[in-house]
Amino acid sequence: MFKNEVRVLAPATVANVVCGFDIMGFALEEPNDLMTMRLISEKSVKIIHQDDFNLPCEPEKNVAGATLLAILENIDDKIGFEIEITKKIKPGSGIGSSAASAAGAAVAANRLLNNRFSKLELVEFAMCGEQVASGAKHADNVAPAIFGGFTLIRSSNPLDVISIDFPPLFVTIVHPQIEVKTSDAREILKKQVSLKDAIEQWGNIAGLVAGLMKGDYQLISRSLEDKIIEPTRSILIPEFDRIKSESKQAGALGGGISGSGPSIFMLSQTEEIARNVQSAIRRNYQSIGIEFNTYQTKINPNGVEIM
Amino acid sequence: MFKNEVRVLAPATVANVVCGFDIMGFALEEPNDLMTMRLISEKSVKIIHQDDFNLPCEPEKNVAGATLLAILENIDDKIGFEIEITKKIKPGSGIGSSAASAAGAAVAANRLLNNRFSKLELVEFAMCGEQVASGAKHADNVAPAIFGGFTLIRSSNPLDVISIDFPPLFVTIVHPQIEVKTSDAREILKKQVSLKDAIEQWGNIAGLVAGLMKGDYQLISRSLEDKIIEPTRSILIPEFDRIKSESKQAGALGGGISGSGPSIFMLSQTEEIARNVQSAIRRNYQSIGIEFNTYQTKINPNGVEIM
Repeated sequence: MFKNEVRVLAPATVANVVCGFDIMGFALEEPNDLMTMRLISEKSVKIIHQDDFNLPCEPEKNVAGATLLAILENIDDKIGFEIEITKKIKPGSGIGSSAASAAGAAVAANRLLNNRFSKLELVEFAMCGEQVASGAKHADNVAPAIFGGFTLIRSSNPLDVISIDFPPLFVTIVHPQIEVKTSDAREILKKQVSLKDAIEQWGNIAGLVAGLMKGDYQLISRSLEDKIIEPTRSILIPEFDRIKSESKQAGALGGGISGSGPSIFMLSQTEEIARNVQSAIRRNYQSIGIEFNTYQTKINPNGVEIM
Repeated sequence: MFKNEVRVLAPATVANVVCGFDIMGFALEEPNDLMTMRLISEKSVKIIHQDDFNLPCEPEKNVAGATLLAILENIDDKIGFEIEITKKIKPGSGIGSSAASAAGAAVAANRLLNNRFSKLELVEFAMCGEQVASGAKHADNVAPAIFGGFTLIRSSNPLDVISIDFPPLFVTIVHPQIEVKTSDAREILKKQVSLKDAIEQWGNIAGLVAGLMKGDYQLISRSLEDKIIEPTRSILIPEFDRIKSESKQAGALGGGISGSGPSIFMLSQTEEIARNVQSAIRRNYQSIGIEFNTYQTKINPNGVEIM
């Protein structure tokens, strides 16, 4: 290990969390991107990819690069960063692949700068990276990637990130191998919602926060409902309704679309139930011949890990 | 005191709680209605008013009466209730006057029936009383009146009431002596809201629940925002914007319309601040010659009190 070098694991994340559209997210134990960063003596950013995803190497077009450029703009030091990225989180999967690059780069750079920025500031830098990926400065993946656990984005402008306590939870992720563009998933949303549905939604998000903080699994389960986003977006995901109902039959507390899809996440109270949920999903997709990846994991309480 | 007699204090309540429209409420230490109830040997309800509000005495037209009739429908015993009501909470003030009658009657009757019903069931009975007052079976006042403290109505059908922990809070209530009909206040609401505003609202209600449970006063304060209901309804309340901004200048965490108005509530972290807030409100209404009542009180953690 060189001096002035740091290695980090940047976790996948689930954004939206059913009734928490645009405001809730959580970090996963797996999968993670691996990143190695070195300080260099010129004010620039160099990106080296150690994977086959063919992501751009020009800093301003790269999520990690744009994050690091934002940091360089905010420091006077005549230094820069060289970063090697080994992506394990497939871009476009809906579990925060771009956010992992942005959050990992922000945390690694901050470590090399002797932690001069707060976590909230790192989220703001990483949001500049997210803008490269999706055109919008959203925090719902980068905040849990940096803070760990469940995070509430009460407000994006000004940014207000709140860590929410949670009980042990096991997560099943399935990623059907189809493409859903975030821009398409955003396009099909209705711009207006009925006051009645909105009230139901804010009852559920309030219930979810209370359920997580109380460690009340049944309340978490009852609160994982969404009549606003899911009915529209789920049509882009094969077998969504069946996957969801069979997961619940297998004992899942609930779940839904991860981010803007196509991945689906399910939460369970025990590892055994989560394994049953995974089996149910696997059987379903195998029976109709859809290719998929699946992960069996937990909530990552710490976010980006410095190795 | 006779045998088979019970006396209760039924508290005023604040519903809606800014960003918690239709789902959040809390109980107040003051004012309270006083109710005395006796078991009688025929299956009927007798109502005696000890105040000057001229409320109806026919059980099916009276809030407490309709609540008690709902209870009688659900028991086989050949008994009934006689109830004396001394209302201190002015009807139409927006601090749950009808809910106090309904909740007080439900809790008193349950005590005479040796507590055979759960609090949740009592809320359901009391909602039958609320229906007489407003035409709708809503729980946002009766739930906090019965459970005490802050309550979240995650769902009305099926009814799901969740008690939310909270730190010490001081409440300033001002009741300008004008009439706002609940039906009018409901009429002027828009049936559709923008997804953008709805997202902001569910961020704030999630923040409010987290703030209350963490005892984080600044988070509570930041979360007490409402762009959906307040801008429409506040036009029915004289000087609302000025009252609110001067209360905040005096140190209030925030506040808004109590129920559907016309009362306004403000929350403060200390009793001293709450008194300053009350003075600011008083000066304002006095300077423009609006008649008003005002209360300086706390959150009632227990709800209806059996004396």
